[in-house]
Amino acid sequence: MKSDLDRLMQENNIDALLITGAGMHNPAMYYLTGGAFLTHADLIKPRGAAPVLFHTTMERDEAAKSGLALKNITEYNYKELLKEAEGDRILATALRYRKMLTDAGVTSGRISLYGKTELNNAFATFTRLQKLMPDIELIGEPAGNSILLQAMATKDDTEIARIRKMGKITTEVVGLTAEFLSSHQTRNGKLVKSDGTFLTIGDVKRQINFWLAERGAEAPEGFIFAQGRDAAVPHSQGTPEDVLETGKTIIFDIFPCEAGGGYYYDFTRTWSLGYAPDSVESLYDDVRSTYETIMSELKLNGNNAEYQERVCDLYQALGHKTIREDPTISEGYIHSLGHGLGLHIHEAPWFRNKEYATDQDILFAGAVMTVEPGLYYPEQGMGVRLEDTIWVRPDGKMEILADYPLDLIIPVKG
Amino acid sequence: MKSDLDRLMQENNIDALLITGAGMHNPAMYYLTGGAFLTHADLIKPRGAAPVLFHTTMERDEAAKSGLALKNITEYNYKELLKEAEGDRILATALRYRKMLTDAGVTSGRISLYGKTELNNAFATFTRLQKLMPDIELIGEPAGNSILLQAMATKDDTEIARIRKMGKITTEVVGLTAEFLSSHQTRNGKLVKSDGTFLTIGDVKRQINFWLAERGAEAPEGFIFAQGRDAAVPHSQGTPEDVLETGKTIIFDIFPCEAGGGYYYDFTRTWSLGYAPDSVESLYDDVRSTYETIMSELKLNGNNAEYQERVCDLYQALGHKTIREDPTISEGYIHSLGHGLGLHIHEAPWFRNKEYATDQDILFAGAVMTVEPGLYYPEQGMGVRLEDTIWVRPDGKMEILADYPLDLIIPVKG
Repeated sequence: MKSDLDRLMQENNIDALLITGAGMHNPAMYYLTGGAFLTHADLIKPRGAAPVLFHTTMERDEAAKSGLALKNITEYNYKELLKEAEGDRILATALRYRKMLTDAGVTSGRISLYGKTELNNAFATFTRLQKLMPDIELIGEPAGNSILLQAMATKDDTEIARIRKMGKITTEVVGLTAEFLSSHQTRNGKLVKSDGTFLTIGDVKRQINFWLAERGAEAPEGFIFAQGRDAAVPHSQGTPEDVLETGKTIIFDIFPCEAGGGYYYDFTRTWSLGYAPDSVESLYDDVRSTYETIMSELKLNGNNAEYQERVCDLYQALGHKTIREDPTISEGYIHSLGHGLGLHIHEAPWFRNKEYATDQDILFAGAVMTVEPGLYYPEQGMGVRLEDTIWVRPDGKMEILADYPLDLIIPVKG
Repeated sequence: MKSDLDRLMQENNIDALLITGAGMHNPAMYYLTGGAFLTHADLIKPRGAAPVLFHTTMERDEAAKSGLALKNITEYNYKELLKEAEGDRILATALRYRKMLTDAGVTSGRISLYGKTELNNAFATFTRLQKLMPDIELIGEPAGNSILLQAMATKDDTEIARIRKMGKITTEVVGLTAEFLSSHQTRNGKLVKSDGTFLTIGDVKRQINFWLAERGAEAPEGFIFAQGRDAAVPHSQGTPEDVLETGKTIIFDIFPCEAGGGYYYDFTRTWSLGYAPDSVESLYDDVRSTYETIMSELKLNGNNAEYQERVCDLYQALGHKTIREDPTISEGYIHSLGHGLGLHIHEAPWFRNKEYATDQDILFAGAVMTVEPGLYYPEQGMGVRLEDTIWVRPDGKMEILADYPLDLIIPVKG
């Protein structure tokens, strides 16, 4: 939680956080400002002190909505800084950061840099700043394990309510999609629209985007609605021109967020229209039984790497290859069991293999995670994944934040 | 254009580009891959050679859609790299980059870093990589003037067609919004819905998001629909609870992009519902006459800084303050005349003040820019801005890419 930040800074010997970039679609800035509409801002949080948000004159009202202490960046005369830097823009910006840090009381110690931003200029500017201020040390942290991510990993009640609401929207849209598919007639095993042409994946995707927007959600990274062989490649988005056919696996993996880059939800079902061939039924049964076993075994403060091991054990016993034995495989069980979720679609804690896991990868109270075992056979044109988002409740219960049936078959007409 | 990249690298003594991050909502990666659905990838482009795209196994199909040379990043055994790095993840990733660069034939020279990505880990990783490879120099460039932005600034016909299509969608949605407002009755100067409650800005914004989604567009950074004093603060998004009233200025600034983070359009109109008070009429006339004068004066290869000067001259002659005299003002003319637009909502070329302009800030053939003079008086609760997006055609014509009337008054019922 946000209130853990000072403790985490202390434990990790970090004296200040410097966050840069936009206010939206920028999790670090969103987390500390509450998602203000800022095209560019900087935020400095010294350890043990309140953050200061640096904004432009044009964005003063939006900055004020954050409730943070503000400083108008225009007060640093850029024209003079540019003169001092003899026209070197990178140096002029670095000089401005030096003034900003000094005004925020940060003139020594370790400063961790954050923000989803354009690396090009940021790398140049902060490398220059490091040279200007030898008494500070600008740092970054290992991917997925920064102290900011550690704070974000424990959700408070407001955050849970927002993720739950996104779950409700997500499952509503999934339900509408199932109904929409069911309302179609088939001709020679293909779904037909009322005008007699075939229903394509592009048609379905447009409809889904529309339903999301109607509910104040967006899918900034798209979503997966993939059929047949596409469904067997976990991150294939699907081919818009493909016609929907009966008896083929469809992976529908949808991960929308609140409009403006807020909290995410993540959800997957595997469907087969009309009927499922035996090979699909059998693959589905293997995934479903593994999903149900793992769900029943997850425990408060359980070790995530051990669950990943357990899934590999279960799948191996059913005769499937896993990435544990060979990280380069492209069929069988080829990814990890899930991931944390919040303002990022992927964040801590992680379900990583033992070799990569850290001591933070456990099911601590307040974590929100996906559980998504899947099996993929591209050569056979089929893949199955089932995914729900769970909240590790302080009372030890693993609560799925939005219920939806696991069923494989979606009935169609004709 | 993309074909200018090798020349620009040569002229600027840059030996390779290294782009990192997602495939979508990441302009640098989108530009070179065509917007593939990649949650994380790296791209290395040596000067005079084709780019190589490094992807994961799960995303091999999406990576292949780019048509680029591919390399599966799983082939670099991370487990062994982590062992070599004695468990230091940052070092392990830096070691992997060293291998990737070496495989791409880049072992010396200046490498410019790109990509909209999380600064935290990227800064740590590339700072470490710099230490590992003393024969290379990792660099960034001044904000808004990198060689990649210089290439992007000249649009080809396909890009113009995509921006034009976004312009059509934008103006369609603006037209629907005007009709929607006009369809409402008023009571005591406030707009009333059919259920008898007042129409709010939140209601209008939901409707607009819905119309955008219906057309395959999204507004990842939101849009501005701001009334009264909010309209007088250029980047105020508007207050959702505010009821729409007659006779107040509304600034409607909408800048959607193709779903998935493609090309943008940018457009602003200022409206007053039912009627406009004399003070608003007068402010509108000043902005409109300035808009029309500047539009008639823009010329192929004209100097952008001089147009910004010209707008300041025009507004000063009309009795308004400008940022030229005082960069800290919050009323009068307080921003620049416009900006380039493409895969970023703000990109080169720029309409900057003389002090900050570079020799690339000119209206060269192929540039796409906004022209958006505005005047703001927060104390008087009013602001006016008019904005269109123009294409500097090779034949010298400044073509507005989507026509829409400039009218101030939107009629309402009753």
